[in-house]
Amino acid sequence: MVKNIKVNAAILIIGNEILSGRTQDTNTSTLATWLNSIGVKVSEVRVVPDEEKVIIDNLNFFRKNYNYVFTSGGIGPTHDDITAQSVSKAFNRKYEIHKEAFKILETYYKTGEFNEGRQKMVWMPKNAELILNPTSGAPGFSVENVFCLPGVPSILKSMLGGLKNKIVGGEPILSKTISLRTVESEIANSLNKVQQKNQDVEIGSYPFFQAGKLGVSIVLRSENQSKIDNCNSQILEFINKKKIEIVDR
Amino acid sequence: MVKNIKVNAAILIIGNEILSGRTQDTNTSTLATWLNSIGVKVSEVRVVPDEEKVIIDNLNFFRKNYNYVFTSGGIGPTHDDITAQSVSKAFNRKYEIHKEAFKILETYYKTGEFNEGRQKMVWMPKNAELILNPTSGAPGFSVENVFCLPGVPSILKSMLGGLKNKIVGGEPILSKTISLRTVESEIANSLNKVQQKNQDVEIGSYPFFQAGKLGVSIVLRSENQSKIDNCNSQILEFINKKKIEIVDR
Repeated sequence: MVKNIKVNAAILIIGNEILSGRTQDTNTSTLATWLNSIGVKVSEVRVVPDEEKVIIDNLNFFRKNYNYVFTSGGIGPTHDDITAQSVSKAFNRKYEIHKEAFKILETYYKTGEFNEGRQKMVWMPKNAELILNPTSGAPGFSVENVFCLPGVPSILKSMLGGLKNKIVGGEPILSKTISLRTVESEIANSLNKVQQKNQDVEIGSYPFFQAGKLGVSIVLRSENQSKIDNCNSQILEFINKKKIEIVDR
Repeated sequence: MVKNIKVNAAILIIGNEILSGRTQDTNTSTLATWLNSIGVKVSEVRVVPDEEKVIIDNLNFFRKNYNYVFTSGGIGPTHDDITAQSVSKAFNRKYEIHKEAFKILETYYKTGEFNEGRQKMVWMPKNAELILNPTSGAPGFSVENVFCLPGVPSILKSMLGGLKNKIVGGEPILSKTISLRTVESEIANSLNKVQQKNQDVEIGSYPFFQAGKLGVSIVLRSENQSKIDNCNSQILEFINKKKIEIVDR
């Protein structure tokens, strides 16, 4: 059997609006769900302000410690959009007009509409590869293992399809959820024993509140379906003994 | 005039379920909004897995670099809840039964219901201060400048009131939003000039899409209302010149 190759990623969410609480970040969950589906596990997420030094330091840490890095935000036309220049500095590459991006936006906008503000969006690190944007024209870009996407959730989502060939994932991470009509403290000990016996399945326990009743979802995650199945049987065993009801969620 | 004292904070979201994309984090936005209202600016957020070493390293970095640290998640009764033991190690304090927390939960649960699973929730770093939980009994805790809260959003929210006296904020951070029927590239240059002239007001520009139409919200943030007002007038000036419509949002 081929050994599973674990591939990981980190996400850097760039923007004061997330840190101020004004905007609820949803890109983390979008990116993480998509990355999981192609066998890439998100190991860490950081949210940082629109400050060049902070962005550069975090980018450099991430790109050296993880297989892939995804950034979201800061690639628009305004003064607070400083991702492209920060990436240029992090990689010590010239920050310059990307000819292909220029052509794309020149065609996208009508004559006269490709103004100075919009032209800022074609400044990128030298030799960046473009990530096409089917929603609003202005492309994202990648440099080595760093992929820079916009902050607007619908635009970010629309660009993921074009990234698939550029990311080489490991075995997809499979999961199974068992939802129970119980509280965590009733199952904590039994669940702990199952976790001890199944070290390579990640077992999470998450309380929920639905239709006025409490419950717990147990989530099993692994690249290996039969390990999940084994773990599942062991959990069903103690659930049956304790006469705990399984519920749909 | 008294100089503004800037007070900052960092948030550590602990939990595999956020990194896998299964759960959408909302605690960042809840905490950030509340902290802003009491004059504390969130400078950084990190989402980390349920892994002791990662939690300890990030906690130690945060508590030395920011005035306050808030953690969310990992204080329940199951095997994947390891925040309290990680905080103990980070501060090099004994991990032990907190007598006051024990009494609270002993009273909260009926006889026989305060089982082994639930008793795990009273293990804390030595001399931790409790953060009372009006929703579900089990308290959070603080050690020096680190405040540990649960991951369930409704419970976390209900505990913030009890924290107010423990956090000393600076001047509240005021903000003003101007929403416009335009696109960012139309105002990017003028806005940049205003930002250059008003270095101590943070000016953010955020595109939106509402009822089928594009718009941009400009957000001004500062501890000083008159600086915001000045900045606002300068923005209204170029908006009027460009005949851009102001919209309600």
